[in-house]
Amino acid sequence: MSEDQSGIVARARGGDVTGVWLVGARGSVATTVVAGCAAVAAGLRPGVGMVTETQVCAQAGLPPLGSLVFGGHDTVEGSLPKRAEELAGQGVLPHGLARSVHGELAAADREIRVGGPLPGERRGDGELIAAFAADIEDFTARTGAARTVVVNVASTEPVPPPGQVRLPASSLYAAAALRAGCSYVNFTPSTGIRHPELAAQAAAAGVPWAGRDGKTGQTLLRAVLAPMFAQRALAVRAWSGANLLGGGDGAALADEAAAAAKNAGKARVLHDTLATVPEGEVHIDDVPAMGEWKTAWDHVAFDGFLGTRMVLQTIWQGCDSALAAPLVLDLARLVARAHERGLSGPLDELGFYFKDPDGPTSALSEQYRHLVAFADRLGGPA
Amino acid sequence: MSEDQSGIVARARGGDVTGVWLVGARGSVATTVVAGCAAVAAGLRPGVGMVTETQVCAQAGLPPLGSLVFGGHDTVEGSLPKRAEELAGQGVLPHGLARSVHGELAAADREIRVGGPLPGERRGDGELIAAFAADIEDFTARTGAARTVVVNVASTEPVPPPGQVRLPASSLYAAAALRAGCSYVNFTPSTGIRHPELAAQAAAAGVPWAGRDGKTGQTLLRAVLAPMFAQRALAVRAWSGANLLGGGDGAALADEAAAAAKNAGKARVLHDTLATVPEGEVHIDDVPAMGEWKTAWDHVAFDGFLGTRMVLQTIWQGCDSALAAPLVLDLARLVARAHERGLSGPLDELGFYFKDPDGPTSALSEQYRHLVAFADRLGGPA
Amino acid sequence: MSEDQSGIVARARGGDVTGVWLVGARGSVATTVVAGCAAVAAGLRPGVGMVTETQVCAQAGLPPLGSLVFGGHDTVEGSLPKRAEELAGQGVLPHGLARSVHGELAAADREIRVGGPLPGERRGDGELIAAFAADIEDFTARTGAARTVVVNVASTEPVPPPGQVRLPASSLYAAAALRAGCSYVNFTPSTGIRHPELAAQAAAAGVPWAGRDGKTGQTLLRAVLAPMFAQRALAVRAWSGANLLGGGDGAALADEAAAAAKNAGKARVLHDTLATVPEGEVHIDDVPAMGEWKTAWDHVAFDGFLGTRMVLQTIWQGCDSALAAPLVLDLARLVARAHERGLSGPLDELGFYFKDPDGPTSALSEQYRHLVAFADRLGGPA
Amino acid sequence: MSEDQSGIVARARGGDVTGVWLVGARGSVATTVVAGCAAVAAGLRPGVGMVTETQVCAQAGLPPLGSLVFGGHDTVEGSLPKRAEELAGQGVLPHGLARSVHGELAAADREIRVGGPLPGERRGDGELIAAFAADIEDFTARTGAARTVVVNVASTEPVPPPGQVRLPASSLYAAAALRAGCSYVNFTPSTGIRHPELAAQAAAAGVPWAGRDGKTGQTLLRAVLAPMFAQRALAVRAWSGANLLGGGDGAALADEAAAAAKNAGKARVLHDTLATVPEGEVHIDDVPAMGEWKTAWDHVAFDGFLGTRMVLQTIWQGCDSALAAPLVLDLARLVARAHERGLSGPLDELGFYFKDPDGPTSALSEQYRHLVAFADRLGGPA
Ligand SMILES: NC(=O)c1ccc[n+]([C@@H]2O[C@H](COP(=O)([O-])OP(=O)(O)OC[C@H]3O[C@@H](n4cnc5c(N)ncnc54)[C@H](O)[C@@H]3O)[C@@H](O)[C@H]2O)c1
Ligand SMILES: NC(=O)c1ccc[n+]([C@@H]2O[C@H](COP(=O)([O-])OP(=O)(O)OC[C@H]3O[C@@H](n4cnc5c(N)ncnc54)[C@H](O)[C@@H]3O)[C@@H](O)[C@H]2O)c1
Ligand SMILES: NC(=O)c1ccc[n+]([C@@H]2O[C@H](COP(=O)([O-])OP(=O)(O)OC[C@H]3O[C@@H](n4cnc5c(N)ncnc54)[C@H](O)[C@@H]3O)[C@@H](O)[C@H]2O)c1
Ligand SMILES: NC(=O)c1ccc[n+]([C@@H]2O[C@H](COP(=O)([O-])OP(=O)(O)OC[C@H]3O[C@@H](n4cnc5c(N)ncnc54)[C@H](O)[C@@H]3O)[C@@H](O)[C@H]2O)c1
Ligand code: NA
Ligand code: NA
Repeated sequence: MSEDQSGIVARARGGDVTGVWLVGARGSVATTVVAGCAAVAAGLRPGVGMVTETQVCAQAGLPPLGSLVFGGHDTVEGSLPKRAEELAGQGVLPHGLARSVHGELAAADREIRVGGPLPGERRGDGELIAAFAADIEDFTARTGAARTVVVNVASTEPVPPPGQVRLPASSLYAAAALRAGCSYVNFTPSTGIRHPELAAQAAAAGVPWAGRDGKTGQTLLRAVLAPMFAQRALAVRAWSGANLLGGGDGAALADEAAAAAKNAGKARVLHDTLATVPEGEVHIDDVPAMGEWKTAWDHVAFDGFLGTRMVLQTIWQGCDSALAAPLVLDLARLVARAHERGLSGPLDELGFYFKDPDGPTSALSEQYRHLVAFADRLGGPA
Repeated sequence: MSEDQSGIVARARGGDVTGVWLVGARGSVATTVVAGCAAVAAGLRPGVGMVTETQVCAQAGLPPLGSLVFGGHDTVEGSLPKRAEELAGQGVLPHGLARSVHGELAAADREIRVGGPLPGERRGDGELIAAFAADIEDFTARTGAARTVVVNVASTEPVPPPGQVRLPASSLYAAAALRAGCSYVNFTPSTGIRHPELAAQAAAAGVPWAGRDGKTGQTLLRAVLAPMFAQRALAVRAWSGANLLGGGDGAALADEAAAAAKNAGKARVLHDTLATVPEGEVHIDDVPAMGEWKTAWDHVAFDGFLGTRMVLQTIWQGCDSALAAPLVLDLARLVARAHERGLSGPLDELGFYFKDPDGPTSALSEQYRHLVAFADRLGGPA
Repeated sequence: MSEDQSGIVARARGGDVTGVWLVGARGSVATTVVAGCAAVAAGLRPGVGMVTETQVCAQAGLPPLGSLVFGGHDTVEGSLPKRAEELAGQGVLPHGLARSVHGELAAADREIRVGGPLPGERRGDGELIAAFAADIEDFTARTGAARTVVVNVASTEPVPPPGQVRLPASSLYAAAALRAGCSYVNFTPSTGIRHPELAAQAAAAGVPWAGRDGKTGQTLLRAVLAPMFAQRALAVRAWSGANLLGGGDGAALADEAAAAAKNAGKARVLHDTLATVPEGEVHIDDVPAMGEWKTAWDHVAFDGFLGTRMVLQTIWQGCDSALAAPLVLDLARLVARAHERGLSGPLDELGFYFKDPDGPTSALSEQYRHLVAFADRLGGPA
Repeated sequence: MSEDQSGIVARARGGDVTGVWLVGARGSVATTVVAGCAAVAAGLRPGVGMVTETQVCAQAGLPPLGSLVFGGHDTVEGSLPKRAEELAGQGVLPHGLARSVHGELAAADREIRVGGPLPGERRGDGELIAAFAADIEDFTARTGAARTVVVNVASTEPVPPPGQVRLPASSLYAAAALRAGCSYVNFTPSTGIRHPELAAQAAAAGVPWAGRDGKTGQTLLRAVLAPMFAQRALAVRAWSGANLLGGGDGAALADEAAAAAKNAGKARVLHDTLATVPEGEVHIDDVPAMGEWKTAWDHVAFDGFLGTRMVLQTIWQGCDSALAAPLVLDLARLVARAHERGLSGPLDELGFYFKDPDGPTSALSEQYRHLVAFADRLGGPA
């Protein structure tokens, strides 16, 4: 694709444009989202990993990938095309892809604004929310987007200490989304829209939202394995895990308070599926040498008939951004379409995508059935 | 339990007795079934591993564990109490259990008859069927059982060579079950009731049956993992596996034709769940040093977004008999109850238990829903 | 063995007796040492796991297993025969063994004295040392042992906080051993004889000693794998590990300061073998459901030719006490013999057995060569 | 590097040139050898994986990497620069490297000759040997190489059926090497110089040789783990393994007779190190989706003290060509130097590199010591 065929203008032709505003827009996930959307839209790659590209969503009236335009906030400098080259060097993006979608990367790059709070930030919460909301509104207006969905893919925040008065950054962005009349997705374990201070505003906003913390690796596995043990009436005694990862996410999770936020979600699936909480801990290690790749080892000690001790171990070796990006695209499309259809509030039917969903958790296969039903509803008569 | 509290007479008091006729009655699975049933019935151990002991079956009207009486065919000598001691030495049965349930083991042992074909067998198919059916009818009459369910837990047979005229042993036993008016469960990959020669007789018999090949380890895992990949639209490229096991089952599966029978079932779950059959082989190795324990390693190479290569590996370390026995008890109770309720023909709703079920395969969680619905139906109004 | 054939008196007949004084005498390792020594001495089991039972030690003049008598200190109540039954229930000791060696267990049990410091302890360091030394001397005198070796197999202590004035318990016992003229082995990561306050006394004592921290599982593997990478000039980037264990050792290592003591030894082998310290952490999790069994997972990310990223993972599933006990017996015999031969000071040649040896660490195979040479020296002309 | 700085002429300047003649010159290993040699010689990459680039070989007088010139035989068409691009796409060669060393790849490509036997081959053994030898002599003359070492990195041949009269291809090339007065390395499990028909000629040739079958992955691990078990007197009961690989090697080993050749070498290390041959099989599966990557899983069941059952599992995930290439370069340099020093016959000291070495096998660390001693000898006074 040459520059003049790509970007905002080209896409807007022939129909509605939907805005996707990425908080953490220069991160690995965000970069993979923008590059991957362009590659799949252009037919360079199949839509592997996106449920929204399968038959079950064919009638849901979702915005086509080619109609999405990207912008966002970040607190660091850099350029998306360069980030994409780095990711290709790590094996996250295939050879040559960054060059093929350079136009789209550059277009998104031009729509990235400086977020906050910045080091030594002097603006108060109100000022920051107003500034963020203005950026989002500008983007929507400038691109002519029918609506914009704000997606949090910024670094995981530490669990806010009890008694903290200021809103965490993720909640500032959520408040800005609400103020700008946008739907909202929280792909991270940060607080976001779940902050008690935002409850009233969220209820009044009339927009849909979904969260929290994308379910990509170890927790995805747990969401099918824990139900298996429960359905077979096998007694899980201990479920232990270790995660090794590098990249920006690894560095962020080296902070113990940030890791705690992540682990709460991981534990929830066990708690909700098995009757009891088994013994065992989960470790998240920052291993820079792993780069964008992650290894998750799980060790499940369970009792079979008559108390016989047995063990299941799983080793998951994946590229986190490549697992996350298709889910982000799915969520952006589904939530934007829900917004279009006038739905509002937490979208419980999207538990399929999250470690710590808004509604009750359950087995992945049940969550999948809810998702399919939701897609039917989105496509059904108003 | 002292001898006089156990055994047939004691159990018959206070209600109906249900007969369970085990083909392969001196094997590891059969021994664990008899010992485990007695232990759980007596409250010595919790009913871990049996769905029929959970809430979902509470209203199904199943025969209580304490009302089951056991007998069966085998072609080898030996005594069940001694087999149970051997299994305890291997860690399959807990310390001291064999002694506690000695009475029940001895009682079942007295009801074991010599099966066939024996080495140098001269009897024809018809004679063998008649002899087996007579043994089963005698057992039912002598124990006063309201009905008997015949369960095949004998050694896996080789896949019958094309053009073989004689019925395989498993089909002789299935024919005998039909002739004796018994319901039937095939827990092995052998042909059993699926032989074309038995079709007419089976259709006319008015009894229910279920099969084939208990789903205990690697295939159980595949039944939850393959749907996960499918639901997440991830492209499985290769699924490879190795199984190490000893014991009688290991020795039987060292025969390539027997292993082929086993592997067909293992492949089916992938074929039915994923759109395509991925690359990869499955090996079954006889490793006598493993005794009754089994290790199954699976390696799944899959593509994520934009073709990124990822890998999932699983290692399952279990005791096969301890995994199989609760399923055999579940099946015996469910199929006996179905018989009581007048159901007949293949019970498609029991796919939860089998590698190669009578009905269509599907994800484990769907199979579980069918099972729960079936339990409701068994307990519902006539 | 009946009671009258076993125990101190029987063993003393026909030759020298060597005393083995176990600090932590009621622990899992100690119990396995006493039971296992009796079982192998009586020919009930082969001497698997003991280098001292192989050809390389045949001419070293080591005390025969049947000539060892056991006693020790512990701070908890209980009986060795009962501990042995518990270990059999966990699969550490084979079925029926505890009964066969009941006499030896009871004999050792009678030689266990209350150690310290006890909760609310009022005795000062000097008093404790004197009391411990008196217990050891009594034991030596009463059993007629030619000499006694003191072996620390007590719970791992926390790393002493800087500036602590009192000696840690392990150093009190080491001081008592020196005062009683005994040789000494520290099988734990605790301080023991390495305390600076003991340096002068140790140098003057004229006895040999060895330590620290038995090398049984993950570190044993690292001692052969790290040299492999080094010899092949492969660049190890990150070496991460997780250990799951229950039992008393699991509970003790749940204390972070105790785990820190353990981890220091584990890291040393990498540091000493590879030119650099790779990235990666080691976790030790207390998982009570694992009982006496341990699982250690290691993940090694390394670079091959031209920087290609590769991974080695190892999973070690063992019973710690069954790995430790033969090493304790080896060490007791080797150090007692060294004492007999007049050797004194740290025995650098025993690095084969330790995570954090007195001498320089090196590859296991070199350590083995040193051990073999040491055995030759022990058996050689005076 | 531009074309005119690279290639034969440039390298020849300033000193001796050593020829490396690769049989299988268009394969993955050969391509990685040529590209990697150029990259390391030019300082683009460190010499990871080559013992000959470490201190222990610094004084051995080996030919510098920059002085090696490459040629070879193959039976397929293609171009090395294109093969290198393909390998980069698979992650074997780093991004951009193929372009940087294009000159060297093209230079080697020009020196590749058509080997044999070709499909429908009419030439007899003698003709083929003569033709191959002439190609090698031409190469040596044209490049002005002081000497040439012939290295077999062609596809693994099936084990020759008993009674086969014709020489296998690998032995034709070995005979050609001898006729051309070249030293020889067999990096594959094929017969090569070990054919009985070649014995007399080899003995008379006055050249050194080394083989057989490069030790890169699973067998490398076994060469350190089996000695560990032996040194610790632990009883290995069963050692099982599965290998998944794609690429040309995977396809070749899908042939059962070829896999048998490979497996013989793998078994030897266990046989030679442990007193007994443990139970267990090794599987080699062709999994095209794995491309040039290989996963090897090993499962070792062993007995500890008192017969306690324990398990070690290893998972090795590597890129075979990247593991093999530095060994090929090491061998070429060491054998060429041995030739220069006048050594002849099988070089037993190079067992470090082979699964099935000419001399006795032993633990890797001992083999390493022999290698170090050999390097000293190569550099020592004549
Ligand atoms: N990749 C997955 O599989 C996965 C799954 C679940 C959740 N997540 C979450 O997604 C998030 C992104 O992951 P990643 O791998 O892209 O991380 P990354 O470190 O590569 O990117 C995070 C980006 O957020 C930016 N950022 C930090 N604070 C910000 C702020 N206050 N305002 C705006 N931008 C800010 C950073 O500068 C960075 O560019 C993480 O929170 C991660 O936990 C990822
Ligand atoms: N254990 C599991 O997890 C599991 C799962 C699925 C299927 N199965 C199947 O269950 C069966 C039993 O397994 P097991 O471990 O108990 O094996 P086993 O070898 O211990 O027992 C099999 C018994 O069948 C008997 N037998 C053989 N031929 C017979 C014949 N013609 N008539 C009567 N008896 C005969 C044998 O003598 C033996 O006692 C096998 O077919 C196995 O494949 C087991
Ligand atoms: N098993 C292995 O593989 C292995 C390897 C290396 C080191 N070790 C070390 O060996 C030690 C023993 O392990 P274990 O599994 O037997 O543990 P355990 O908890 O079963 O036994 C430890 C015993 O020490 C006693 N003890 C604690 N404080 C004492 C004191 N002050 N004086 C006297 N006795 C005291 C405890 O009461 C207990 O009986 C641990 O320090 C462990 O780290 C074990
Ligand atoms: N890579 C490793 O770790 C490793 C380790 C040990 C041994 N090996 C052996 O090295 C060899 C090469 O492996 P590869 O991955 O490069 O395989 P490959 O399939 O990529 O290359 C083999 C090459 O040999 C050529 N060839 C086949 N028959 C020939 C003949 N008669 N004359 C000349 N050329 C012929 C083929 O055309 C091909 O180009 C194999 O035998 C393999 O088993 C590799
Ligand atoms: Na993740
Ligand atoms: Na240990």
